[in-house]
Amino acid sequence: MIHQLHALLEGSYDEMVSIRRYLHQHPELSFHETKTAGFIANYYEKLGIEHKTNIGGNGIIATITGSKPGKTVALRADFDALPIQDEKEVSYKSTVPGVMHACGHDGHTAALLVLAKNLNELKDELEGRYVFIHQHAEEYAPGGAKPMIEAGCLDGVDVIFGTHLWATVPTGTVQYTYGPLMAAADRFEILIQGQGGHGAQPHKTRDAIVAGSQLVTNLQQIVSRRLNPIDSAVITIGSFVADNAFNVIADKARIIGTVRTFKEDVRSFISEEIERVVKGTCMAADCTYDYQYFQGYPAVIPHDEETKFLIESTKAIKEVSVTEQIDPDMTGEDFSYYLQKVKGTFFFTGARPNDAQTYPHHHPLFDMDEKAMLIAAKILGTAAVTYHTKDQSALNANESLLR
Amino acid sequence: MIHQLHALLEGSYDEMVSIRRYLHQHPELSFHETKTAGFIANYYEKLGIEHKTNIGGNGIIATITGSKPGKTVALRADFDALPIQDEKEVSYKSTVPGVMHACGHDGHTAALLVLAKNLNELKDELEGRYVFIHQHAEEYAPGGAKPMIEAGCLDGVDVIFGTHLWATVPTGTVQYTYGPLMAAADRFEILIQGQGGHGAQPHKTRDAIVAGSQLVTNLQQIVSRRLNPIDSAVITIGSFVADNAFNVIADKARIIGTVRTFKEDVRSFISEEIERVVKGTCMAADCTYDYQYFQGYPAVIPHDEETKFLIESTKAIKEVSVTEQIDPDMTGEDFSYYLQKVKGTFFFTGARPNDAQTYPHHHPLFDMDEKAMLIAAKILGTAAVTYHTKDQSALNANESLLR
Amino acid sequence: MIHQLHALLEGSYDEMVSIRRYLHQHPELSFHETKTAGFIANYYEKLGIEHKTNIGGNGIIATITGSKPGKTVALRADFDALPIQDEKEVSYKSTVPGVMHACGHDGHTAALLVLAKNLNELKDELEGRYVFIHQHAEEYAPGGAKPMIEAGCLDGVDVIFGTHLWATVPTGTVQYTYGPLMAAADRFEILIQGQGGHGAQPHKTRDAIVAGSQLVTNLQQIVSRRLNPIDSAVITIGSFVADNAFNVIADKARIIGTVRTFKEDVRSFISEEIERVVKGTCMAADCTYDYQYFQGYPAVIPHDEETKFLIESTKAIKEVSVTEQIDPDMTGEDFSYYLQKVKGTFFFTGARPNDAQTYPHHHPLFDMDEKAMLIAAKILGTAAVTYHTKDQSALNANESLLR
Amino acid sequence: MIHQLHALLEGSYDEMVSIRRYLHQHPELSFHETKTAGFIANYYEKLGIEHKTNIGGNGIIATITGSKPGKTVALRADFDALPIQDEKEVSYKSTVPGVMHACGHDGHTAALLVLAKNLNELKDELEGRYVFIHQHAEEYAPGGAKPMIEAGCLDGVDVIFGTHLWATVPTGTVQYTYGPLMAAADRFEILIQGQGGHGAQPHKTRDAIVAGSQLVTNLQQIVSRRLNPIDSAVITIGSFVADNAFNVIADKARIIGTVRTFKEDVRSFISEEIERVVKGTCMAADCTYDYQYFQGYPAVIPHDEETKFLIESTKAIKEVSVTEQIDPDMTGEDFSYYLQKVKGTFFFTGARPNDAQTYPHHHPLFDMDEKAMLIAAKILGTAAVTYHTKDQSALNANESLLR
Repeated sequence: MIHQLHALLEGSYDEMVSIRRYLHQHPELSFHETKTAGFIANYYEKLGIEHKTNIGGNGIIATITGSKPGKTVALRADFDALPIQDEKEVSYKSTVPGVMHACGHDGHTAALLVLAKNLNELKDELEGRYVFIHQHAEEYAPGGAKPMIEAGCLDGVDVIFGTHLWATVPTGTVQYTYGPLMAAADRFEILIQGQGGHGAQPHKTRDAIVAGSQLVTNLQQIVSRRLNPIDSAVITIGSFVADNAFNVIADKARIIGTVRTFKEDVRSFISEEIERVVKGTCMAADCTYDYQYFQGYPAVIPHDEETKFLIESTKAIKEVSVTEQIDPDMTGEDFSYYLQKVKGTFFFTGARPNDAQTYPHHHPLFDMDEKAMLIAAKILGTAAVTYHTKDQSALNANESLLR
Repeated sequence: MIHQLHALLEGSYDEMVSIRRYLHQHPELSFHETKTAGFIANYYEKLGIEHKTNIGGNGIIATITGSKPGKTVALRADFDALPIQDEKEVSYKSTVPGVMHACGHDGHTAALLVLAKNLNELKDELEGRYVFIHQHAEEYAPGGAKPMIEAGCLDGVDVIFGTHLWATVPTGTVQYTYGPLMAAADRFEILIQGQGGHGAQPHKTRDAIVAGSQLVTNLQQIVSRRLNPIDSAVITIGSFVADNAFNVIADKARIIGTVRTFKEDVRSFISEEIERVVKGTCMAADCTYDYQYFQGYPAVIPHDEETKFLIESTKAIKEVSVTEQIDPDMTGEDFSYYLQKVKGTFFFTGARPNDAQTYPHHHPLFDMDEKAMLIAAKILGTAAVTYHTKDQSALNANESLLR
Repeated sequence: MIHQLHALLEGSYDEMVSIRRYLHQHPELSFHETKTAGFIANYYEKLGIEHKTNIGGNGIIATITGSKPGKTVALRADFDALPIQDEKEVSYKSTVPGVMHACGHDGHTAALLVLAKNLNELKDELEGRYVFIHQHAEEYAPGGAKPMIEAGCLDGVDVIFGTHLWATVPTGTVQYTYGPLMAAADRFEILIQGQGGHGAQPHKTRDAIVAGSQLVTNLQQIVSRRLNPIDSAVITIGSFVADNAFNVIADKARIIGTVRTFKEDVRSFISEEIERVVKGTCMAADCTYDYQYFQGYPAVIPHDEETKFLIESTKAIKEVSVTEQIDPDMTGEDFSYYLQKVKGTFFFTGARPNDAQTYPHHHPLFDMDEKAMLIAAKILGTAAVTYHTKDQSALNANESLLR
Repeated sequence: MIHQLHALLEGSYDEMVSIRRYLHQHPELSFHETKTAGFIANYYEKLGIEHKTNIGGNGIIATITGSKPGKTVALRADFDALPIQDEKEVSYKSTVPGVMHACGHDGHTAALLVLAKNLNELKDELEGRYVFIHQHAEEYAPGGAKPMIEAGCLDGVDVIFGTHLWATVPTGTVQYTYGPLMAAADRFEILIQGQGGHGAQPHKTRDAIVAGSQLVTNLQQIVSRRLNPIDSAVITIGSFVADNAFNVIADKARIIGTVRTFKEDVRSFISEEIERVVKGTCMAADCTYDYQYFQGYPAVIPHDEETKFLIESTKAIKEVSVTEQIDPDMTGEDFSYYLQKVKGTFFFTGARPNDAQTYPHHHPLFDMDEKAMLIAAKILGTAAVTYHTKDQSALNANESLLR
């Protein structure tokens, strides 16, 4: 049946490309993806596949129930785009000024839709139940995953699989981790309030730029001195603004940054340590402050068993030439919320075009190898339909995957 | 004759006020003061006083020659206004949106014009020659003093006197220094060039905000450790701008500031030390930089003998109740250039209105006590006409002035 | 045969304790362990086991050749002590003032000697060859491992196993890693040379304490900003000394520290970055410097296959109740050199006494559970005699060990 | 009579040298100057001059009363030595190991004793009363001046004069200031208490060296940002000690320094600001601290009128070729206490030997031009005997002295 599924997917590749290109031409920003949601719902409607709309916002869930008993397996694709101007010169270029599918969510959606269609055709032979989660708003915290879960998209689900097409990695490569795959990505804002004045009269002021500079300098000690060196973490000040005339002493300085972590205790410790350093540095400089810490998505932490199972599944897929365990990436994803609720895994599907220069995700010239959609669909489909029969003996053969 | 002059000035006080209020209503920005220059020239023209226009720009020089031999004494008043919106509610409020005489130059000009008129009436009794320097563009470096001097306004001049009406000091008080009165006021700009990138990937970047913060911190050591503690100096960073998204590592940081000094060797030493600290700090952070140092006006350093003489002259002026030696002020003035060429002095004439709240110079609600114009005219006039006969014995009586 | 070996070891436990206590009473410092070496050589001599002395210093190698063909397996124990005063009150307390076996090397040696004796008794049944490496000078860089290897102690060796008795982990637990177990531990020294002078005359000096303080502060940015956050590393300044009268400006400051890393490229990068920061900070402060970086032992990086094999071997040992994969420890060991030359692994054997308070290694009250010696001997012996027959099928059963 | 006094002093020069050399050979440390005090008392005893011993410690006061009415004039010389080994090769080298008159107090004493003797000879012609204050313990705070004043040494005194022989200035030069001559010299001690630990485990510690380094760096902002740039001040960290092994994280750091100021409000403000910076920096680094500030002598602030009078007096002294107003020196002196109680002045008497290399005060090779003692005696004597008749007209001639 795996071979049947693969053959069906290969036969539907042109449709996959066609869907992806249509979506690429009609991108919508996070939380505003109503037309894309309509497109997805319409696709299922035409195929007569059971589905629900407006799940936790613009989210959609479609469900296929096999003829035999089995687990309930969820597969997820996100479908929002980014506020970036498409600068590619291709036939399927974005038609919406300043909005672009620069992260591959169009490909995620196309792959999942076609996979659903093909699985529907095999329904009579399938075990278990299949839930297709089309998630809005991955790019913009607080994201769509959380409200979709709150709206019940994981009810009854045993396991979830998801992937990100990864245009900086060659097509044919699959990347995974044991332990965190992606980081918790938080934001903080600090306003240092001094007292402004004439540049020639420091004694009548409290210089917010000097205080802010000491703060940035002192904050470095958190990563270098306060954390366990085994625990990875990043504290970045992205913005420091105190914009005045040259002959003025700054009244205030605004400092904004991000924190990246893999562990919840490290995450909350850093949030507290930043405040300690802010408080102490401002006290030393006789300034006051306002400090706010905004939690973004938590770390994406795949479940080891499911990762091992999924990677094993790729052996049946001829296009997958390399599977490699990687160091975690410190970017974020709200797939983390699904993995906090049910078992599952998340991985990267290489999508570097062979014949073109590669641009990173979120770049105005971003594009990807569309063949990767087929690979993603095969991996997700294979894992989904075989999950019911996975057992220990199957795993025994796979120890080479584990490191 | 001093008494005669004082009486004439008192009789002309209403005209002085009237001129000042006219100018106050018609302010012009530095280097654009053509109508004000026309007004001044016209005043001299009507009185038949010899004068020249377009001296080094919009500057004007008028000359009165006494009937007896003597020194050549120059008196200076500046006449440009500031890019500030007048927010006072008075009949003589500025009629030009966004432009205002918020520093008292209108008063300087009114006092000098009326003084010239009155001295002209006493011409037959005067010794020596009197040069009235009406200077444009004091507020904006490189200023009007330098080109006026280059155009010859000090040719043949033996001594120069000038004053600034000072609205934060009570009317009746005259302030002076032995040694510097006002500071050299310079500007510097530093661009730190790092390498930007994703906020989660510090190892692929060179963080310009961290480098800039270390720089601001390290720059403090120049004043605290590198200068003779006896020498006053200020290094202020007025602006620190690296304005990015929270999850980005800054590519560049722009740092702009001012340096205030009283001695030329300290001034040039600081300029070099800043570059040393910039260079070293950027090397430590693997960043590059661009550093530019712009010299503003040099320090205003009155000549002791002339200051002593002038302060002695105030004894004859009934409105002067207090003369006080003060600490220098770290603001700047291009009167410094005149004092580098010829002997002379510069002082502050108190002009704090008795019955109103006082606002600092350059404030949208700035105003001043117009009586101070009369005092300034009396001091400058008295000093000018008695300078020819000053001698040592006169000075001997004045030792109480010297501290 | 494994059971036979275990039985022999159990029967020799009292001898093991007796040897360990003798060595505990007679500790010798690194590179001065001549009597201990004599004791070891004598032990082998009496048993008629082939051995060589003075290998790369005080090192000893003993060799037992089985009756059947097979691999050559090396086992290593170190035997030097520390410059610490033994403050325990026990019968086997150190008799040498200021010298103490405070790290368990006495136990390593006792376990290995008795294991050799027991294996010798089973010689006729053994496959392959067994090399017992008794290493001097582990505690003091450059250590004994390197010269022993240069003297040929690994010639012909196929695999090496070693363990450290670990008194902070309960007896019965075995700890291991895939990837680095222990860190490279380097040392650096920085001398900042300013120019001293009177505390009241900063302008005549170059303040080495201010420069040194900025250096320590700036060095924090290497870990926080210059390294990949995934790569663990520590830069610690252990010592900052500029010891002068209160009213003096410091001529020099001496800064000494350590660097801990797991990867060679990170290690050399940090060494270079420290110099960059030193150079830049000293330039900014107009000071000069001397910088020296001393490489200690490299990271201990066990080989995955051998680790997997060894941990599997522990299944046969009834005293081992827990095997756990741990985060690496940032302390160092010169076992790293062996693992750079041949395959093998290194692990921690729990030795926390049940009925006593536990003190950390290198503490004057350090002691350990002697039962752990028996466990270590069983693990090393079991791994050694079964290494010849290890095969893939055996490994297949063990995947649970891998995470 | 001035000429008479000068002639007597010239005639006594050999005695002056002889006394100075005797004292130079027999130096005593501060608060231990019993033999020197005995020598001084004996000198007065033999001459029959009224004197009291043990004034506020080892201090001595001698009194001569003229035959005519007049003011009471005090003259002060200090007589303690320093804990320095005399390394000169001269006949009058110190005979006490490790103790040396390396600051010229022997010369002060010799000059004052001989002056007293000569004035005693002129007693019948003198107006007023003369108090000779021989002060112990100037070199070591809290000093001898304070207890001597408390013991009444200034009772009835109208004016006090004192000088310091100054070996870095040529003989024949007299230096003075209007405003402060010497600074308040205070001491502070900061202990930063972190939590020590292993150099590889920063997360289990609180690094006192990093905190201390940030503190030293942050302290720079007090002088650079918190003080009026017109007010001179120095904050110097003389000592930073955290002396540990290279692989340890520092438990504590001890920081010791000095503060130099001229104004009492600046002095107390700095003391508070240091604590603010310490408190804030330690809070940021999660460390605790102990901070202590010890006030040394206050600033030496001569009275203008008395300075003017004294400098005028030097006109009568043929050996004085130059009188110059100088910038203040940031070293300290407890003559400050006398000037807080009564009118008077303090000045530097040049004593740079012509034919020898010059070494600074407190140097093991320090020596001075003995001729300066005669000059000092003449100046002090002249000022003392003419103080009664000083009047305004005399001053009128002296305005050239005032700047």
